[in-house]
Amino acid sequence: MESFIMSLVDVASRPGMISFATGLPDNSLFDVDGVAKAVAEVLREAGGAALQYDSATGFVPLRMRIADRCRKELGFSVGYENVILTNGSQECFDLLARMFLEPGDRMVVENPGYLGAIQSFSAYGPEIIGADVGPEGVDTGQLEAAVASGSKLFYSIPNHQNPSGGSYSDPVRTRVADIIRGSGCLMIEDDAYGELGFNGRAGRTMKSMAPEDVVLTGSFSKTISPGMRIGWMVVPEWMREQAGRSLEAASLQSGSFDQRIVDRFLADNDYDVYLQGLRKAYAAKKDFFLDAMEDELPDSVEWNDPQGGMFVWLKTPPGTDAMRVFDAALEDGLVVMPGRPFHVRGGENTLRLNYATPSEEQILSGMKILGKACRDALRYF
Amino acid sequence: MESFIMSLVDVASRPGMISFATGLPDNSLFDVDGVAKAVAEVLREAGGAALQYDSATGFVPLRMRIADRCRKELGFSVGYENVILTNGSQECFDLLARMFLEPGDRMVVENPGYLGAIQSFSAYGPEIIGADVGPEGVDTGQLEAAVASGSKLFYSIPNHQNPSGGSYSDPVRTRVADIIRGSGCLMIEDDAYGELGFNGRAGRTMKSMAPEDVVLTGSFSKTISPGMRIGWMVVPEWMREQAGRSLEAASLQSGSFDQRIVDRFLADNDYDVYLQGLRKAYAAKKDFFLDAMEDELPDSVEWNDPQGGMFVWLKTPPGTDAMRVFDAALEDGLVVMPGRPFHVRGGENTLRLNYATPSEEQILSGMKILGKACRDALRYF
Repeated sequence: MESFIMSLVDVASRPGMISFATGLPDNSLFDVDGVAKAVAEVLREAGGAALQYDSATGFVPLRMRIADRCRKELGFSVGYENVILTNGSQECFDLLARMFLEPGDRMVVENPGYLGAIQSFSAYGPEIIGADVGPEGVDTGQLEAAVASGSKLFYSIPNHQNPSGGSYSDPVRTRVADIIRGSGCLMIEDDAYGELGFNGRAGRTMKSMAPEDVVLTGSFSKTISPGMRIGWMVVPEWMREQAGRSLEAASLQSGSFDQRIVDRFLADNDYDVYLQGLRKAYAAKKDFFLDAMEDELPDSVEWNDPQGGMFVWLKTPPGTDAMRVFDAALEDGLVVMPGRPFHVRGGENTLRLNYATPSEEQILSGMKILGKACRDALRYF
Repeated sequence: MESFIMSLVDVASRPGMISFATGLPDNSLFDVDGVAKAVAEVLREAGGAALQYDSATGFVPLRMRIADRCRKELGFSVGYENVILTNGSQECFDLLARMFLEPGDRMVVENPGYLGAIQSFSAYGPEIIGADVGPEGVDTGQLEAAVASGSKLFYSIPNHQNPSGGSYSDPVRTRVADIIRGSGCLMIEDDAYGELGFNGRAGRTMKSMAPEDVVLTGSFSKTISPGMRIGWMVVPEWMREQAGRSLEAASLQSGSFDQRIVDRFLADNDYDVYLQGLRKAYAAKKDFFLDAMEDELPDSVEWNDPQGGMFVWLKTPPGTDAMRVFDAALEDGLVVMPGRPFHVRGGENTLRLNYATPSEEQILSGMKILGKACRDALRYF
C-alpha cells in the first residue's frame, strides 16, 4: 500500500485514462507567464547568485513574506527566523517525525487522514492511533484520550481535509486547542488547502490558538507550483535550532532558485487577487463536478459539498466494498482513489474524488463511467 | 559542531569578509544566460505541466541523460530506472542511512571525510569508524578491517576529495573494489567532483568495478547550480524499489521544474564543452591560489597540489593547533575552514582552503592575511 498513491499517478497517466484519483492541482490555472517573467527578472537582477547555495533554512525575503502573511491572514505573529523552507511540506513531516518520534512512540492521526503524511511518519515506527473525523472535524473525545495516553504528535488538516474535504468547526478548534495546549503532544497543522477556501479561510488557525504547541505547515504546491517544491513550517522558538539542524542533515537546504522565483512572483503579483482567481475557478469546478455527480450517480451513494480544497468524499452504502466500484471504473477507463488506505480503521465504503484536476469534458465522461461502476458494483443495494 | 559549516557560511557573508572556507562554486562561472534560455523554452513548450508534480524518482528525460553519461563517461551501463533524482546528493546520504543503518550499526568514513555527509549519517546513530586517507587514497588495510568487523556502509569521495583534495590511485581503487565486492558493506561513491578533474577523470569509477555493491551519487551542484538542488544516486537493481519508496516517504519528490530546466540546458549545450570551460577556469584559479600560497605562507606549513575539485589541504607542523591560525585569520577578516571537524581522529593541524569561490583580488588579500596568521600563530616553529 505504501506507494499506492504514486502507482495510481502512473496508471492515471496512461493515454485515454480519466483520473479523479490524484491530488494534482489544475495545470491550466498555473500562471505560466507570471512565473516566466519572475524567472527572467531573478536571473537578470541576481545573476549567478540566484543559482548559488543559500542558507539551510531558506531564502530570507520569501520567509519574511510568509511571516508577514501569518500576521495578516493566519492570526499570529512570528519572525522570519521561525519560518523554515523545506522541499515541499512532505519534508516537514519527515523532519518532525525525525525530531519527535522514537520507534514505538504513540502518535495521533485523523481517521481518515492524509496518506502521504502517514507514510512519512510510519517510516519512524510509531504506534499510530486514529481519531475519527466527522462533519465537524476530529472527534475530540478520541483525541483527548490519545493525547492522555502519551502521544507525541498529532497530525491534522483542519481546513478542507485531504481526503474527506471537511473542515473543523469553531467549537472543535477551541476544544482541540485546549487539549493540545501544554499537553506535551505537538500538533502539526497542515494548512496545504487553507488558502483555497471558496469563502475565505474555514476558521482560525490552530497555531494562533496554541502557538507553543503547534507547528503550522504550508506550501505553494496547491497554488503556484508543486514541481517547485516549496513547503514551509512555522515552528515555536523552542524547537527552531533543532529544526534547522535536522533540515541541514537531511538535505542541506531546499531549492533556493525556486524560492527566489516565487519571492519575485509574489512581489510582482497581488497574491490575494491571484488566490481569489484560483478559489473562483475551483469553486466553479466543484459545482460542475457535483452537478455531474447528481446527474450520473445512483441514489445509493452519498457525498459532501466541500467548501474548499480539491476533494469530494463519496460513500457507498454501509457494508459495501468501494473497491468494487474502483475496479469496475478502472476497467472502463476511470481511476478513482479508494478511501480505505487513508484509514487506520474502517473506510471500506469510501472513495476520494479529485474535482480539481480533470477538465469539464473529462468530468462528464468520467462521471458516466463512475455512475455505471456504482450501479454495477452495488446492484444489490 | 553540527552546523559548523553553515555558521561559517553566515560569518563569511558579513560585509568585507574574505572567505576560503565554504564549498561554494564560483558564481561567475554559472551560465546564467543559458539557464534563462532553458527556463523560457521549458515554460513555452510544456506550459503548466512544467510546474506540476512529477513521479517520485524524477523527470525521466533527465534520468535518461544521466544514464547515458554513465555509459559514456563513467564506465558502466544502467537503465534510467536505476537513476533516482534527489534534493541534492545530501538527500541520497540521508536516504541510504535510513535504508541501511540501525542505531549502533557500524559504518566506515574516510578520515578526513566530508563533514556534511557524516552529519547526515550521524543522525541515524551509527558507530562511525574512520579509515585514514593519504596521498594514494583510503588506507585499504584499515578499510578491510572495518568491513570485516561488520560495517554496513562505506562512504567515500574517490575523486578530488572534500576536504583533502586527493584522489584514489588505481591500485587503491582495485583493492577497494576487491574488499567491497560481496562483502555485505554497501559503498557510497560520492562523485560530486568527478567531472571537475583538470585532466579528465581521476580514475575508473568504483561503481564500474563493483556494480552490485556500490551506489554512485552525483550532482549538478558543482557544475550548473547548487540552488537547483539536483542530485542523484545510481542504485543496483536489488535496492531500486526500496530507494523509491524511501524517497517518496521523505519528500514525495524533488524539484521537477528545475529538473526540466537542467534537462533542457543539457539539450541546448554540449556538456563536455561546458565542463571543459569549468575545468580550465578552476585549474587557473587553483594555480593562481597556489602561487599566492607560495608567495605569502611561511615555510613551516605545507599543502598539496589538487588535480580537480575545489580544495587545497593545508597542514601546519605536527603538534600545532591550526585553530590558532583560524582564529588569527578571522580577526583580520579571513574565514578558513578548520580541518579537525572532518576527522574521526586527529587533524588538529589541518585547514581546508577553497580556491574556487574567491576572486583573484580576494585570493591575494586573503593570502596575505593567512600568511600573517600562520606566522603569528606558529611563531615558535
